[in-house]
Amino acid sequence: MKINTSRIHKRIAALAEIGKTSDGGSRRIALTNDDIAGRDLVISWMKETGLDVQVDQIGNIFATLKGKTSGNPIMMGSHIDTVGNGGHLDGCYGVIGGLEVIATYVDSDEIPNHDLCVAIFTNEEGVRFQPDMLGSLVYAGGMSVNDAHNIVSTDGKKLLDELANTNSLGSMECGSIIPYAFIELHIEQGPVLENNNSYIGAVGGVQGISWTGITFKGQSNHAGTTPMNLRKDAAYAASRLTVSVREITESIGDGQVGTVGVITPKPNLINVVPGEVHMTVDLRNIDNQKLKEAEFLLEEVIEYICLEEGVTAETNQLVRFEPVVFDKRISDLIANVAYEQGLICTRLNSGAGHDAQMMARICPTAMIFVPSKDGISHNPKEYTSKVHLDAGAEVLLSAVAQLDSGKTLS
Amino acid sequence: MKINTSRIHKRIAALAEIGKTSDGGSRRIALTNDDIAGRDLVISWMKETGLDVQVDQIGNIFATLKGKTSGNPIMMGSHIDTVGNGGHLDGCYGVIGGLEVIATYVDSDEIPNHDLCVAIFTNEEGVRFQPDMLGSLVYAGGMSVNDAHNIVSTDGKKLLDELANTNSLGSMECGSIIPYAFIELHIEQGPVLENNNSYIGAVGGVQGISWTGITFKGQSNHAGTTPMNLRKDAAYAASRLTVSVREITESIGDGQVGTVGVITPKPNLINVVPGEVHMTVDLRNIDNQKLKEAEFLLEEVIEYICLEEGVTAETNQLVRFEPVVFDKRISDLIANVAYEQGLICTRLNSGAGHDAQMMARICPTAMIFVPSKDGISHNPKEYTSKVHLDAGAEVLLSAVAQLDSGKTLS
Repeated sequence: MKINTSRIHKRIAALAEIGKTSDGGSRRIALTNDDIAGRDLVISWMKETGLDVQVDQIGNIFATLKGKTSGNPIMMGSHIDTVGNGGHLDGCYGVIGGLEVIATYVDSDEIPNHDLCVAIFTNEEGVRFQPDMLGSLVYAGGMSVNDAHNIVSTDGKKLLDELANTNSLGSMECGSIIPYAFIELHIEQGPVLENNNSYIGAVGGVQGISWTGITFKGQSNHAGTTPMNLRKDAAYAASRLTVSVREITESIGDGQVGTVGVITPKPNLINVVPGEVHMTVDLRNIDNQKLKEAEFLLEEVIEYICLEEGVTAETNQLVRFEPVVFDKRISDLIANVAYEQGLICTRLNSGAGHDAQMMARICPTAMIFVPSKDGISHNPKEYTSKVHLDAGAEVLLSAVAQLDSGKTLS
Repeated sequence: MKINTSRIHKRIAALAEIGKTSDGGSRRIALTNDDIAGRDLVISWMKETGLDVQVDQIGNIFATLKGKTSGNPIMMGSHIDTVGNGGHLDGCYGVIGGLEVIATYVDSDEIPNHDLCVAIFTNEEGVRFQPDMLGSLVYAGGMSVNDAHNIVSTDGKKLLDELANTNSLGSMECGSIIPYAFIELHIEQGPVLENNNSYIGAVGGVQGISWTGITFKGQSNHAGTTPMNLRKDAAYAASRLTVSVREITESIGDGQVGTVGVITPKPNLINVVPGEVHMTVDLRNIDNQKLKEAEFLLEEVIEYICLEEGVTAETNQLVRFEPVVFDKRISDLIANVAYEQGLICTRLNSGAGHDAQMMARICPTAMIFVPSKDGISHNPKEYTSKVHLDAGAEVLLSAVAQLDSGKTLS
C-alpha cells in the first residue's frame, strides 16, 4: 500500500480556500460559517471514501471504515478549526492524513482487521469557546456534555445553540467509541525537527504547563537623586527573576523550558525607578516531578530577590496542567517505522496542547510530528515541505498497519 | 540677624494657593495664567521689601537691594513654575528663601557690601516649552534670546508671544548682571539627606546624564515548543542588561547611578518568547570620566549579551549632559556654616537639573539642599518639615553674609 500524496496536497489546498485571509492564512474559528463549510467539505470526502460518518453531542465527527473483526477501532484525526489567522496545516494535516490512510486501504481493496476511524474534534483552538481542546476533552470524559453545552462564546453565544444552529449537534454519545489506539499526525509547531534535520518526530508525551503571574512592588523613585543602596527597584527584581528562570532551566536540564513572556513596569519612564512590575513565568516539562522542582526553585528565588532588593512579590498560579505521557509502545512503533523507512526520526515531547492528550485518558495514544519551517505556527507563514508531509502520512499508514496486526499492543 | 521663619511659611502657603489642584498640589505651568498670578504675587513681595525689580528679555525677574559698593551682586533664587501637579516647595522655596535673606537685611537695617539680588527664572520645568531650565540657560548664554523666543509650546504658542501677552517680556538684556556668586536653595528631591538624618546638603555639583535607548531583536517563538538552546530571547537579553547595569554601578562605585526605567517586550504574551524588547538605560555621575567608563561598560556588555543570546541590539543616545561641578569654595562655605550652626550636613551631588547649573557657567555657584520626605518631589506629596526649611534659610543667610565679607572668594 502506498499513500496518494497528491490527493493529500490537493485536499489541504482545497480546505485552505475556505476562510482564506488577505495574507493567505486560514480563519475558520470553531462553529463559524467558515468552520462549518470546512467540516462539510471534509465530510463530503469521508462519504466519497465510503465511510460511515457519525457526529456526537459535542459536534465531533467520526468517519469509520469497517474492519474484519468487531472490536475497537484504530482512530486517527485531529481538528480543522483555526486561530484568528493561522496556517493551512495545524490540525487539518492530521485529519486529511488520517483520512488518506483509510482511503489507501479502500483504494487497495485491503480490509483491515480493526475498524479504522478518523475524527475531527470540535473547537481545539479555543478561540471562541474556552477551554481549548474542548471536543476531545468532553469526548474523553473530562467535562460533562451538559457543562460544555452551557459554555458561552466570546461573542455571547451558547455552545449548544451554535451546535444546533449549524447542524453540528449529533446524537452519538460522547465517548461511545473507545479506540483500540489513537494516533494524531501533526506539524511540530516548534523548531526541533528542522534543527535535527529530522523527517519524523516520535512524540513521547505533552509537557505539563505551569503559569505564574508575579507582581513585584518596590518604590518608584527619581533615577538621578536616588542612590543605588536606597533603591527598591521592581524592574531590577523582575530582571533578576528572568535571568534566574533561565538558570532554573539549566539546573534542571534536558526538557525543562522556562519563559518570561510578559514584563510590564510602572510607570515605564526613562528617568523613574519602576515601583511596580507585573511579569509572567511559563514553565513546562514532560516530567511532573521535575516541573514541581522548577516551581519550587522559582518560589525560592522570588523570596530571595525580595529579601535582596527590599521589594515584595504577589504570585498567582494562572495555569497548571499535569504532563501527559503517551503510550511508549506506540511511540516506539512510530520511531521503528521511521527507521525502517530510512527517515531520520527524533524522539521529542510536545510543547503545545493537542487532542491526543485528551484521548490518552481513554486509550493507548501517541503522536507523529513533521517539521515546521522555522518552528512557525498559528501564523499564515506556517509551512512544512511536501516531502515532510508525505513522509508523515507514510509513517502513519505503516504504524496503523502494524497496530492492526495486533502485535504492538498485545 | 535672624530669619523671619513664619513669613517664609506664610509666603510658601500663599503662593501654593495659586493654581492649587484638587489633591492639594500646585499647577503653575510656565507663562499660564496661574504662573503669571504667582509671579505677580512674588513681585509684590519684592516691592514691599523695597527692592528694585527688573525683568529681562526671557522673562527672568531680578529683585535687587543696593549694597555699599557698586560691584557685582550676590544672587540667590530659583523658579516658581511647576510641573502638571507638583508640590509647594520645588523652586518656590529658593525664591522665597532668597527674598527672605534680603528682607532680613532690610528689617535689620543692615546694608550689605555687595548688592543682594534674588532671581525668578522662567520655565525651569520645561513642561510647555522645551528645553527645561530655559530662563537660566538663555541668561547664561547657552541659547540666544532670538532662538528662545521662537520656541513653540506644546499647545502651539510662540514663547515671544506668550511673554508679550502676559506682560512678562522685559527690556533688561539677558546676562547683563553677572553675579559675584550665585546660591540656589532647594529641596533635595531625593532620599539621601533624610536617610543620613541631615538638615543640610552642601551640593558639590550636578550629575552628568547619559540616556541610551536599546532595542534588542531576537526571535519570537512558542514558549512550549522551543528548546532553551534554540532561543533568541529578547526579554532575557534585556533582563541580563538590567542586571548588568546594577553591576556596572557597583563596579564604578560611589556616586554612579544607573536605572532601567523602560522595558517594553513584544508581543508581551505569557506563552511567547519575546522577539523584541525596547528598553532604556539612564546613567548619571558627577565625574565625567567615570560616566564615560560606565557608558563604555554598557556598550561592552550589550555586545557580549548579543553574542551570548544570538540577538541584535540597536542603541541610540537619547540625552548626554556633561556634569557640572560647583565652586568648591562656596560648597565648603555652606558645609562650614552648617557645622557652625550645629546642623548635620551631608555633601552630595544633585541628581536633578537646576538653574544653578546654568548660572555656574558665568559665576561661582553652589546649592543648599534640605531634606525631602521619602525623597518625593514633582508630586502633591512633596514635603519638607518647617524645621528643615528654617535651617536651610538660616544657612543661606549666613553663607551670604560670609560671601559678602569678601573672604570666601578672595
